[in-house]
Amino acid sequence: MLVNGRHYRTVWLEKNKMKMINQLLLPHAFEIVSLRTTDEIVKAIKTMVVRGAPAIGATAAYGMALGVASASKKNFDAQIAQTAKKIKAARPTAYDLFHGVDFILDSIKSAKTPEQKKRLAIKAAEAYANASAKACEKIGEHGSKLIKNNYRIATHCNAGWIACVDWGTALSPIYFAKRQNKNIFVWVDETRPRLQGAKLTSWELLNEGVAHAVIADNALGHYMRRGEVDMMIVGADRIAANGDFANKIGTYEKAVLAKENKIPFYVAAPRSTFDLGCKSGSQIVIEERDEGEIHFVGQCRVTPKGAKARNPAFDVTPAKYVTGFITPLGIIKPRAIVRAFRK
Amino acid sequence: MLVNGRHYRTVWLEKNKMKMINQLLLPHAFEIVSLRTTDEIVKAIKTMVVRGAPAIGATAAYGMALGVASASKKNFDAQIAQTAKKIKAARPTAYDLFHGVDFILDSIKSAKTPEQKKRLAIKAAEAYANASAKACEKIGEHGSKLIKNNYRIATHCNAGWIACVDWGTALSPIYFAKRQNKNIFVWVDETRPRLQGAKLTSWELLNEGVAHAVIADNALGHYMRRGEVDMMIVGADRIAANGDFANKIGTYEKAVLAKENKIPFYVAAPRSTFDLGCKSGSQIVIEERDEGEIHFVGQCRVTPKGAKARNPAFDVTPAKYVTGFITPLGIIKPRAIVRAFRK
Repeated sequence: MLVNGRHYRTVWLEKNKMKMINQLLLPHAFEIVSLRTTDEIVKAIKTMVVRGAPAIGATAAYGMALGVASASKKNFDAQIAQTAKKIKAARPTAYDLFHGVDFILDSIKSAKTPEQKKRLAIKAAEAYANASAKACEKIGEHGSKLIKNNYRIATHCNAGWIACVDWGTALSPIYFAKRQNKNIFVWVDETRPRLQGAKLTSWELLNEGVAHAVIADNALGHYMRRGEVDMMIVGADRIAANGDFANKIGTYEKAVLAKENKIPFYVAAPRSTFDLGCKSGSQIVIEERDEGEIHFVGQCRVTPKGAKARNPAFDVTPAKYVTGFITPLGIIKPRAIVRAFRK
Repeated sequence: MLVNGRHYRTVWLEKNKMKMINQLLLPHAFEIVSLRTTDEIVKAIKTMVVRGAPAIGATAAYGMALGVASASKKNFDAQIAQTAKKIKAARPTAYDLFHGVDFILDSIKSAKTPEQKKRLAIKAAEAYANASAKACEKIGEHGSKLIKNNYRIATHCNAGWIACVDWGTALSPIYFAKRQNKNIFVWVDETRPRLQGAKLTSWELLNEGVAHAVIADNALGHYMRRGEVDMMIVGADRIAANGDFANKIGTYEKAVLAKENKIPFYVAAPRSTFDLGCKSGSQIVIEERDEGEIHFVGQCRVTPKGAKARNPAFDVTPAKYVTGFITPLGIIKPRAIVRAFRK
């Protein structure tokens, strides 16, 4: 997608180095970091220089390929195993890390020589990233059909291209609609505590020239009630077989408000986000992050010293609030998930 | 209420000066400011050193009384009229300013000499502040009967004693329950953009020793759905005759979520907040504040340069979401408002 008018992916390979946009500095500075070693790559994942499940998956695939490419012939297999272990441990709850690493390991399994493996690994990583970008593009293509001219669309957090390799999930249909010359407007909520809406989604939309307004997290319901929201699209971190799904804290609130105000509520996600082994939302464990994220905004302390805070990172939204899932295969109703993906 | 173990009101008179807690510095510093002239008092209201409808009303009454007390005998009535005009113009949408000023003017009307008027004005201002504190105390007394042992109570924004003369509105029942030795816990949402929850409500509860946790504005629904919220109490800025009410942006969202999760939702307010001349919420105009409040948290800019923001200060919650109004007269159902207050 566009940054200052030029096309970028979130992460890519260039002359045996991994390049990525430093998401920690956005929206105030745009910086490309260059990574070579597995340790550098693991650190970038840990410190959230790169974030978002699909982007993390591609980082893992590229990182694994670079690990294979730079392994010396002596102890070749042991070095590869060590690289895989390190990358998988970077953020143990990020399922896409495993997906990316294992994709490379599977791709080089049948090759006989280290040279063959090195060549295949790089090829496989590029294929992984391209497939990831393509899946998001298909999400945009299908989702854009739901967006009518003059629609005012709400989203939450950042499920944009910066969280993926390209296009994004929730924002991909919006970018498609924009390129189809539809007149659209996006409501962007700040998404405390980490402010991904205010910082990342707004930055993406500015760069793509999509009209939008940032609002406080509690304000969207007000606009819904006044009839100023035509649809809502969010991303997802994990979707259960019955259509319950986990996403950034606050998603559940917006889903309830959308239903109360008869506003269509869509969830955009690639195949990898659907976890058919997870029967329902009650099986999803919610990560609670450090309470310091609530006490501070940047360097500014907002609560009194001695105050306690709670900081759940995600919530679970029951399937009954979901109008449909926007997937690379098309729009899927919650009850059709298993049938669509079991093949 | 207590600050560092000592009892304070939000605003009071001391040796012909008005004293008030500087709310702009909370929760990081506790400072009492001392005001003498009408201009100083108007500035304190304008810059929100003092905020909250009942607190503003008492400030206006004390300010008017000081104006009368310091008027010289020459042009006595003209000086009084000028003081009244200045104070009423400090924040023209704050209805309590008029209420406080007019109460003093009415009280001195029948007096004949300037000396009599001066004495009566001070007496009337004290009576006004005492009645205001007493009304909040009654709200606490009635509301505390709704709070059972081990209740986890949610609130929004700050409708505490710092917004009133003493006790508060939404928080008054909580302070009563605490003094009744009930085991209670309060969910406090941050309340962006001005963070009155994180800054003021948390500070009040800490000082009163009430267990609580600050959460992001989007997180309360998550705890409601998990059965970790037993009731919700909020304040109000204006209540229409049919029970629709305006309050801090976000109140509507929480009311819908409370209903969806079958959680009792109460609105605590003194008589002056009920506007029987306002038929329904559709007649309430919503103030939109400066968008800079969204772009910045303290000194920290959170949105990209060039981004637009919207900043509605209040929203309207329809009466159907309200379980009851906690008033100095007792608990009143939305449809009983006119009957209760018309007398």
